[in-house]
Amino acid sequence: MTENEAPLGFAVHTAPVGLLDDGRDDFTVLMSTVPSTVSAVFTRSRFAGPSVVISRAACADHNARGVVVLARNANVATGDEGECNAREVRALTARATGVPEDELLIASTGVIGRQYPMPAIRDHLKTLTAALPDGGFERAARAIMTTDTRPKLVRRRIGEATLVGIAKGVGMMEPDMATLLTFFATDARLDPGEQDRIFRRVMDRTFNAVSIDTDTSTSDTAALFANGLAGDVSPDAFEEALYGVALDLVKDIASDGEGAGKLIEVQVTGARDDAQAKRVGKAVVNSPLVKTAVHGGDPNWGRVAMAIGKCSDDTDIEQDRVVIRFGDVAVYPPGLPGTRDEDEVRDAVAAEMGGTEVIIGIELGIADGAFTVYGCDLTEGYVRLNADYST
Amino acid sequence: MTENEAPLGFAVHTAPVGLLDDGRDDFTVLMSTVPSTVSAVFTRSRFAGPSVVISRAACADHNARGVVVLARNANVATGDEGECNAREVRALTARATGVPEDELLIASTGVIGRQYPMPAIRDHLKTLTAALPDGGFERAARAIMTTDTRPKLVRRRIGEATLVGIAKGVGMMEPDMATLLTFFATDARLDPGEQDRIFRRVMDRTFNAVSIDTDTSTSDTAALFANGLAGDVSPDAFEEALYGVALDLVKDIASDGEGAGKLIEVQVTGARDDAQAKRVGKAVVNSPLVKTAVHGGDPNWGRVAMAIGKCSDDTDIEQDRVVIRFGDVAVYPPGLPGTRDEDEVRDAVAAEMGGTEVIIGIELGIADGAFTVYGCDLTEGYVRLNADYST
Repeated sequence: MTENEAPLGFAVHTAPVGLLDDGRDDFTVLMSTVPSTVSAVFTRSRFAGPSVVISRAACADHNARGVVVLARNANVATGDEGECNAREVRALTARATGVPEDELLIASTGVIGRQYPMPAIRDHLKTLTAALPDGGFERAARAIMTTDTRPKLVRRRIGEATLVGIAKGVGMMEPDMATLLTFFATDARLDPGEQDRIFRRVMDRTFNAVSIDTDTSTSDTAALFANGLAGDVSPDAFEEALYGVALDLVKDIASDGEGAGKLIEVQVTGARDDAQAKRVGKAVVNSPLVKTAVHGGDPNWGRVAMAIGKCSDDTDIEQDRVVIRFGDVAVYPPGLPGTRDEDEVRDAVAAEMGGTEVIIGIELGIADGAFTVYGCDLTEGYVRLNADYST
Repeated sequence: MTENEAPLGFAVHTAPVGLLDDGRDDFTVLMSTVPSTVSAVFTRSRFAGPSVVISRAACADHNARGVVVLARNANVATGDEGECNAREVRALTARATGVPEDELLIASTGVIGRQYPMPAIRDHLKTLTAALPDGGFERAARAIMTTDTRPKLVRRRIGEATLVGIAKGVGMMEPDMATLLTFFATDARLDPGEQDRIFRRVMDRTFNAVSIDTDTSTSDTAALFANGLAGDVSPDAFEEALYGVALDLVKDIASDGEGAGKLIEVQVTGARDDAQAKRVGKAVVNSPLVKTAVHGGDPNWGRVAMAIGKCSDDTDIEQDRVVIRFGDVAVYPPGLPGTRDEDEVRDAVAAEMGGTEVIIGIELGIADGAFTVYGCDLTEGYVRLNADYST
């Protein structure tokens, strides 16, 4: 993406401040140079860090310009000292860039229970000025990474306006906010109330529909900054663009889940309502036995039946109305018109599972509720990465 | 265990009927030779197999003598044919042993979605007679295994009476019934109502307190058969013995979880009530990131804070009242009297994690609710085993 493909009026600063001592950029400021409106959602964790507490307050009036991101240290479970540090980092950044302090969010991601290296951060912030370089979304997408293997950035045009989204994954995602950090920037002008409704609708169908490992981060933050410099846009066109950007990011995140080799998409239809469809989809996409079967390319479709069965409070789910498909292959119930014998079904499912994207269809046969969720397989690589991560 | 250490009046038959074609015993009949009372609990799965449906009905009047167990084929998601087969296996076993059909339970465990090899089973049942050999609980404990690496059998005396429990694990355990199959046999005499209350109380604190991988089996069955041949026992003494046997089995199951190398015990205290303590304990013991950290011996205690935080509906959990310990080492909050600096804490936690049993203590500081849950680490071995299991 060249600078003239970026939304107008956004500046990005990245630098290494030594949060993990490997010389990589780990400190990011992404902000509009003019006032902008914000929509944001945060983790519901009871162990949310001070970054989340501070940012949630900053978004209450829907006026915020941008965010300071510290990657590789979550600043969670760090007590009063951790909260003071977070406030100081934001205040110093605000002072250097000339932005009101309460118009900046702060976001942190990484190891829990360690203090920021404040002397190094203070030294760096002395060098920061209001003249942040324009653009640089690629650099930001890279600087916010932790165990991601690649930066995630998606861009769409809406008439004269531009929307850019960046995200980092990749573990600890589920169920109330999917990714640790996701930021959208646009120069479109939107009514703040409408912007917020659109943002929440899209988040529900995208970032709240992805699961990597059922763990929920203490730091999840998603925010959309809109500064209006490119003028009005059609709300419908904007929602479509935002959905497209968010869904692309979600699929990229799921397929880059820790150690992941395959994207799993579970399409649930025929549910009592959308919430039930989502519950069933999550039960399947989060099942370690389904995830390992997909990893192994093992046509063990019975594990999908098992995972549906876990929704034990959904007493309107009846085995004899459920249909399970892998791609186009109907596997359950046995003897469904068009199904084949056990061995043929297993061979066909094994073929479906051979690709890097496995689509599981579940029809519950109750009513019209539908929801699609996204996840990834569970691999030895996930275990290795997370057995060794903090040390 | 010699035969005279077994409870009086129980007979065991085991044989290979070719459920997996490797010559191992896979067919078990365990029954009292005289009438007995039964207490039982079953999976709540919406995809429960016909074995569960049939057995649940058989236990409704609390009169049952024993169980037929088929290992390595779950007979789940097999349609009407699967149900007919289950009824036929039970009927043939009842006829051969001279026991009323409705006094026999049937239990199945293994791959989902495949029919029993009925010709081989019918042939075998023609050879079965009423003269089942006495004792043989070790053989039964071995014949009901699937991916278990060792049989699980525990025995206690209650005065003149004997109680034996056998169980098989080891994946797909959570949250409403922990293990696939667990059977207890005793010659103690108990009031049927009291037996049932004791059984349910003990199951709640043991088999419903263990999680291996958050998946719930379609086949979970636990049953206690009491034939009274050794006469009356003190209900309190019996409950203590049953709790001891069940807890030993649970710990054995958890440490033999698929691929597991370590037992994890999470002791939650100071909760609003026992249910909240259990919820928090399960969130921690089921967290893939906690499980992988334990596997790696990584002193990343922040993941425990993260996992507690997942109980987002428990809004009375406040970070500043929570205390987290690994063994005797207090790790959170920072600066707790007796805690050491970050590096010292990490070294001490790493030492605690070096053993084969890791005890995590969580004090919520709300009220007096308490619950202890059991689980195991998540390893590359789990992934490998489950990526390859059915094929």
